[in-house]
Amino acid sequence: MTETQTQPRPAALRDDPKVLKVALLGCGTVGSQVARILLEDSAALAARAGARLELAGIAVRNLDAKRDEELPRELFTDNAEALVDSADLVVELMGGIEPARSLILRAVRKGASVVTGNKALLAQDGPALFEEADRNNAELSFEAAVAGAIPIIRPIRESLSGDRITRVLGIVNGTTNYILDQMDTTGAAFADALAEAQRLGYAEADPTADVEGHDAAAKAALLATLAFHTPVALEDVRCQGITGVTAEDIAAAKDSGLVIKLLAIAELVTAAGEGGAETEGASVRVHPTLLPREHPLAAVRGAFNAVFVEAENAGQLMFYGAGAGGRPTASAIMGDVVSTARRVVAGAPGRTDTATRRLPILGIEAVTTSYSIGLEVPDQLGVLSRVAAVFAEHGVSIETMRQRIDGDEPGSGEGTAELRFVTHRASEKDLAETVADIKNLDVVTSVTSVLRVEGV
Amino acid sequence: MTETQTQPRPAALRDDPKVLKVALLGCGTVGSQVARILLEDSAALAARAGARLELAGIAVRNLDAKRDEELPRELFTDNAEALVDSADLVVELMGGIEPARSLILRAVRKGASVVTGNKALLAQDGPALFEEADRNNAELSFEAAVAGAIPIIRPIRESLSGDRITRVLGIVNGTTNYILDQMDTTGAAFADALAEAQRLGYAEADPTADVEGHDAAAKAALLATLAFHTPVALEDVRCQGITGVTAEDIAAAKDSGLVIKLLAIAELVTAAGEGGAETEGASVRVHPTLLPREHPLAAVRGAFNAVFVEAENAGQLMFYGAGAGGRPTASAIMGDVVSTARRVVAGAPGRTDTATRRLPILGIEAVTTSYSIGLEVPDQLGVLSRVAAVFAEHGVSIETMRQRIDGDEPGSGEGTAELRFVTHRASEKDLAETVADIKNLDVVTSVTSVLRVEGV
Repeated sequence: MTETQTQPRPAALRDDPKVLKVALLGCGTVGSQVARILLEDSAALAARAGARLELAGIAVRNLDAKRDEELPRELFTDNAEALVDSADLVVELMGGIEPARSLILRAVRKGASVVTGNKALLAQDGPALFEEADRNNAELSFEAAVAGAIPIIRPIRESLSGDRITRVLGIVNGTTNYILDQMDTTGAAFADALAEAQRLGYAEADPTADVEGHDAAAKAALLATLAFHTPVALEDVRCQGITGVTAEDIAAAKDSGLVIKLLAIAELVTAAGEGGAETEGASVRVHPTLLPREHPLAAVRGAFNAVFVEAENAGQLMFYGAGAGGRPTASAIMGDVVSTARRVVAGAPGRTDTATRRLPILGIEAVTTSYSIGLEVPDQLGVLSRVAAVFAEHGVSIETMRQRIDGDEPGSGEGTAELRFVTHRASEKDLAETVADIKNLDVVTSVTSVLRVEGV
Repeated sequence: MTETQTQPRPAALRDDPKVLKVALLGCGTVGSQVARILLEDSAALAARAGARLELAGIAVRNLDAKRDEELPRELFTDNAEALVDSADLVVELMGGIEPARSLILRAVRKGASVVTGNKALLAQDGPALFEEADRNNAELSFEAAVAGAIPIIRPIRESLSGDRITRVLGIVNGTTNYILDQMDTTGAAFADALAEAQRLGYAEADPTADVEGHDAAAKAALLATLAFHTPVALEDVRCQGITGVTAEDIAAAKDSGLVIKLLAIAELVTAAGEGGAETEGASVRVHPTLLPREHPLAAVRGAFNAVFVEAENAGQLMFYGAGAGGRPTASAIMGDVVSTARRVVAGAPGRTDTATRRLPILGIEAVTTSYSIGLEVPDQLGVLSRVAAVFAEHGVSIETMRQRIDGDEPGSGEGTAELRFVTHRASEKDLAETVADIKNLDVVTSVTSVLRVEGV
């Protein structure tokens, strides 16, 4: 037989369009839940999808490895390519770049749609994969890749497709939200909160991808791509994690009615271009951020996720829920599976359609924001006026200032004082220059913290 | 010309599928915003929809009436039927039952898809309209009918289509949420908070539909239909408004760390059927409800809306945003317009697909809930024990009791006391019988309030 003969045609072209063969690649925490749902809920799923969803097989790397004993042994295979070739719809849950990437390309090239939760792969190769899917009238769905169970990809791509999204603020990493929430609630230091998160299974043994913000950055790139209809790559995202956040930062925030969250921020910004013309562009960043305690995102506790969206007409929206875990993530995967099946049954081509334009990516210098700046200074008269003069020089307006003095006689020159400023919105450039000049003042012992403030 | 010749074919069948003619029926607060967006954002919309969305006309009842001066005069017509006949896609924003119903039927019968925000019509005739749309491969979209700008219909229908939703709790009426929030914040009486809401334009001159819960009930029926994939009609919804909520109820709730919200509640419940067999069914109701202040819905302030969804795999999700207003509602309408246009361009038939099964609607007796019960009693020894005995008789367990005594000498028999109980979850039937028996006790002066508690 030739290769063409061994490849079954997609269900829409087969004699019986009422059965769709689903290939599952990977069977970890999420994969085993997806398999369970496909097997247990098949009647309800068939009614909603308009076709029976037949689990054609589960590809795993090693057939001898320990596996979910609840799932029928005969479903497992180590031949992922053959499984993909036999399927109408492929669910990729292997994670990592290869072989996930090659298998997804193999699937879409034969017209099979793919559902994946692989944010690392999408952040690296998303545009190329989307393009290949579109070229083959296949579809690449990835609701599970951002904020687990929370429906956010579909609302942005479809519900808000007639609006203009101007900003997205997301708590999209449960590990760091758990750590910051613990620090806020118990006053713990970062290292202790991280250890507790590791003990409870919220953080991995090597927590780098979470605490350094890399996981959030991949999701920020995806959210920005969809929100602004323009390609945004991982390297376009400016990223700072939470390892530098101290118990003192948290306590000072609390004193001011603020809370620190690691936010993925995607903004449409306007920058002065050449010859005074204005350029619209996207700015995408991940960093610890101060938020007022009344902000809807401030109430997102523990390992929960939430995405706050500002759109020109819709105004402020928030989407809240579980950001990870086998069952919540499987719910998102299955939503994509059923929606894809409906489309295939209807005979419509897939359309991933993420980028309809190409906006410039603007550096953080183009952004205006507020800063909270903490300084340690000697407790001498005249220090505040010297510091305030630097703000004024750079045109940065101070919204609030708090002084805390350690020592018995204020102004005696013997103790030290802590000054904490919150500025009004100013350009990142002016703020960065202000901080640099303050550092160089002889009356300033040290700059103890610089944090951006949103939602004020 | 015969009628057939005058009817243009839907765009997917025309020579140039890249233009879709959009008919707008109605030009009030929402309609004028939809027209503005179609005209102003046409390039971006065309890129996202895959077709130019041409505003073919705006049907109004009276051409001489005052209208939006920003919109070109020549777009207006009083011949809605001719406009519908010329369109590929119809946006119905007239409100009310007729002529909206006939025009929607006219559109779908010729294969044109319809986008509407008309919750009154859908609550009354939804199933018949959906069926007619499906029969004609047209689609009837209605994201704007529930919770304004908040994407909730699409997430329930698509993102959660592979999950099993077990419960929906919604703050879906901004007027009543504003009133209750004012009462909670300022201690105002219902009548004063209502007057303030009317002054600010949050409540209409005749506030009946809002404060009696009828508006929320229509939305509850729609949410239940979608969440449980079964037809739910307006008359299936048990409905109680907020006119009976007193400043004392609010204050007592505050004392106990609770807040009162008007919730639309749709639940999957299991009731003992005939011969001891269990029946699964849906229970749908609207009533003032006590919620713990830590519950995500408790933080929904002012006229904002939010829908809290519990699903078997996804866990708890919440969708938050503006529930009304011209621009937010127009955002939801336009999301449906662009999504519909994409589908039409792809040549796929519409599929409204709301009910895939027929669950029994169960009365509130089938529900288990907690009650908060307030009693006025003479301040005599032994009263509490008599009341507690009634709870015990009906097998209802008391979670908390608070007593407040007015008068100088507790237990003297001269003052009055207020008792407030919160029960554990029990069946509505047992709770109702408990309250009836307590009312008949000679030691009880009056039952001052009975409120259901959720989220504990």
